[in-house]
Amino acid sequence: MDFDLTHGSAILARTPTTLHAWLDGLDTAWTSVNEGPDTWSAYDIVGHLLHGEKTDWIPRAQLILAQGDDRRFSPFDRFAQFEASQGRSLAELLRAFTTQREASLATLCSWQLSDSQLALRGEHPAFGEVTLRQLLATWVAHDLGHLAQIARVMAKQYRAAVGPWREYLPILDRG
Amino acid sequence: MDFDLTHGSAILARTPTTLHAWLDGLDTAWTSVNEGPDTWSAYDIVGHLLHGEKTDWIPRAQLILAQGDDRRFSPFDRFAQFEASQGRSLAELLRAFTTQREASLATLCSWQLSDSQLALRGEHPAFGEVTLRQLLATWVAHDLGHLAQIARVMAKQYRAAVGPWREYLPILDRG
Repeated sequence: MDFDLTHGSAILARTPTTLHAWLDGLDTAWTSVNEGPDTWSAYDIVGHLLHGEKTDWIPRAQLILAQGDDRRFSPFDRFAQFEASQGRSLAELLRAFTTQREASLATLCSWQLSDSQLALRGEHPAFGEVTLRQLLATWVAHDLGHLAQIARVMAKQYRAAVGPWREYLPILDRG
Repeated sequence: MDFDLTHGSAILARTPTTLHAWLDGLDTAWTSVNEGPDTWSAYDIVGHLLHGEKTDWIPRAQLILAQGDDRRFSPFDRFAQFEASQGRSLAELLRAFTTQREASLATLCSWQLSDSQLALRGEHPAFGEVTLRQLLATWVAHDLGHLAQIARVMAKQYRAAVGPWREYLPILDRG
């Protein structure tokens, strides 16, 4: 399916409420565990989503829409949350993410993007030319990827506890 | 981590509200698509969770706790939802699942299970002996596995739409 603004925004709008229902108030025994060295906990993932909201999706879309001489995106710092989240509770990060996502969607909506605008191009530091439409589709798929990751990170806590059922639960052995 | 009633129930209690926030009212263009032949949509998955609530987790736990002569579980029908969900909206299935899960958790809580009860055994039709503790841990991991599956099924709709970003989004090519 091709990216469509209404279709895609529906997922983007639901991610904060989904994360709230799932994680807000949940014991840190669930939210602070990761999958081992150099992997992320649910807490880390929410911090990453918040950072993306501030520095990735809308700023890159703005860069494309401006069609200035330099259309090259700043590289996205995938590890910024480890510093940015310090001293903040998960509840705080969830609230900040919700506010920031609402602002992002308000901006996106205010642009009333046409098909020809969605076809405008920017330059990705690794891939080269990408369209605004691809950027926005990626935003949606990125949300869903991290929701799946949160489920996987938490499920793995019971990898041994499920005993022989492990065979029926591929999520417990997924990288 | 070993299964613990409070720790595990916290996830079980959050699954219905998480699904509501994520899927209730979402266009069927998202909720009715699957990953191809013999795969499930978000709608199918919610029906499956509802069926499990009625016939799998608590009934099997009851069978174990009774410690009767026949402790063998009835095989779980993984495809029951295709008939059982017919004519029902996703909103209806979500409501039914929420009610049934609340009832399941009330039953589970009312048992005030001791460690020795959690160590009681039933007979799985494929695996043989399993403990009540393993069954309950599986219930939790099963919820999380299906949340991850919902994210994956929906994300795959944008597999082509993301263009070169596909390389950074492993969820789009996961089986």
